[in-house]
Amino acid sequence: MTDSEREDEVRYHVDGELVPAEEASVNVRDRGFQYGDAAFETMRAYGGEIFAWEAHADRLAETCSVLQLDHGISDDELRARIDETLAANELRDAYVRLSITRGVQPGKLTPAETVDPTVVIIVKPLPRGGSDGQPVWDEPATLQTVKTKRVPDSAIPARAKTHNYLNGILARLELRVTEADEAIMLDTDGHVAEGATSNLFFVRDNALRTPSLDGPVLPGITRRVVLDIADDEGIPVETGQYTPDDIRNADEVFLTNSTWEIRPVDVVDGLEISGDEGVDGNEQRSGDDGDIASDGSDADPLASAGPVTTLLARLFAARVEREYYG
Amino acid sequence: MTDSEREDEVRYHVDGELVPAEEASVNVRDRGFQYGDAAFETMRAYGGEIFAWEAHADRLAETCSVLQLDHGISDDELRARIDETLAANELRDAYVRLSITRGVQPGKLTPAETVDPTVVIIVKPLPRGGSDGQPVWDEPATLQTVKTKRVPDSAIPARAKTHNYLNGILARLELRVTEADEAIMLDTDGHVAEGATSNLFFVRDNALRTPSLDGPVLPGITRRVVLDIADDEGIPVETGQYTPDDIRNADEVFLTNSTWEIRPVDVVDGLEISGDEGVDGNEQRSGDDGDIASDGSDADPLASAGPVTTLLARLFAARVEREYYG
Repeated sequence: MTDSEREDEVRYHVDGELVPAEEASVNVRDRGFQYGDAAFETMRAYGGEIFAWEAHADRLAETCSVLQLDHGISDDELRARIDETLAANELRDAYVRLSITRGVQPGKLTPAETVDPTVVIIVKPLPRGGSDGQPVWDEPATLQTVKTKRVPDSAIPARAKTHNYLNGILARLELRVTEADEAIMLDTDGHVAEGATSNLFFVRDNALRTPSLDGPVLPGITRRVVLDIADDEGIPVETGQYTPDDIRNADEVFLTNSTWEIRPVDVVDGLEISGDEGVDGNEQRSGDDGDIASDGSDADPLASAGPVTTLLARLFAARVEREYYG
Repeated sequence: MTDSEREDEVRYHVDGELVPAEEASVNVRDRGFQYGDAAFETMRAYGGEIFAWEAHADRLAETCSVLQLDHGISDDELRARIDETLAANELRDAYVRLSITRGVQPGKLTPAETVDPTVVIIVKPLPRGGSDGQPVWDEPATLQTVKTKRVPDSAIPARAKTHNYLNGILARLELRVTEADEAIMLDTDGHVAEGATSNLFFVRDNALRTPSLDGPVLPGITRRVVLDIADDEGIPVETGQYTPDDIRNADEVFLTNSTWEIRPVDVVDGLEISGDEGVDGNEQRSGDDGDIASDGSDADPLASAGPVTTLLARLFAARVEREYYG
């Protein structure tokens, strides 16, 4: 099978049916539209299979629990609809977005307990992952700390991944007048939370550090995998509360999300992230890691990344290669 | 013309066209659906005309300014679409919801500057307003202070009325285990902000008090009209920061929004709101106000409301009667 790229053949899954993408719609009275009253997951299919499906299904269930959205659809049924959508589009390597809304209900803000949910699955081709894959991003990210603060958990719990995404959009809008392509969002106390669509990691004193989930931080699936890989490798890991200065002064910084996987950061608030190693260190960074397969490409997307970022990215790719293309 | 109540004849306005309600839909890739990236207004038509249209149009523009959503549609054009929708449904007294979304854009969270907006207008019949009208609510509201805090302005400015409404939904979900039908939402500092879909007023020492717009409080259109009426009547008005105890110990409490207009509150956090007047005061409350027209109905919806609430509600109704049914 080959990835279909013809827009007019694309099929989405809406409310139990495969429909042409341009006809895929929800009623204007759907609560997912009127209020953003919906849970969603963004996933990747590698070689025809959803990466970390169980973790995504668990987080989706947690979001629905926060929203008290009892949709009554099993994980297996959701998975079957995703597989059906991938197959209908002849896609094996893909971006997948699954949404479950509270559907249409009588015209009140207070949700009725009985739900006729709307389930929407959108797919599009993405390059394959694994050691032979190419990342979705073209170059390292440039970060800018923004004024828009993360919504505190006391208002909307960050562990709920919902269609209420304006907070991140306002953060991204601040980047219009900058060179940056991702925001560093702080919590209302001024601690680093995350990017608009990514979790943030940094390396200092050879330890991997990332904001704790005690703050308003989405429990990213890729974030979890990266922490597990670091543990397996014996890389010291710390989760905690950090300031923007901690990020600016880091030796390495990178972002994670399902589509970017591990994306290096080269500039934070206008300052280059370079660590303390100097030229020798930089040379070391672009070297091989020995036990990690390399595609031998001239344009190594990790060329400017630090050693811990490079190691984690290659271990991540190796895990994807082994589990989904093995 | 008479209000159409046959669902199969209802027409909504979507993207410049009148369409049957059941076919009124937005693409699943519309940002209004995927992210709640949309501005909206809830309005009432009295006698065929939108109440306080200019104030609604101004607030909509302010919301779009916050969202940097440059939709390029004039207020006159929006008004014309609303009028067309009301006419198509033979409605003169109606609920009207106008939404403008950022439309479909390439699959990134960062909005593109060029927008092909989606405009949706939903209508449904509502009883007429004015002195001869009946309120939408059946009885006074019962309030409960909830744990869910209002999203702070630093995360999403409260003056933006958007499709990101989960904060209010989470507040309403807390009411499932209570007798209450509206939430009192506090800001993250513990001060009273507003209801999930309403502004909150109370009376103490004969002065009308309501949370200041310095907090995370939607600048309600009805809130503004009520403050103007109070000014005109020489009722002392104070806007400020208040605690839940201020509301519980108030002489009178009421809520405002476009559909409820002025809705009395009889219970706050399980405590009856009764003021200090005793039986004489209660008798006084249900008396006539002399210069305000009364419909002579046996079931006066303001029967249990305090004197300031009753006065303001009757002055509000008189204003609607004069301006829209005169």
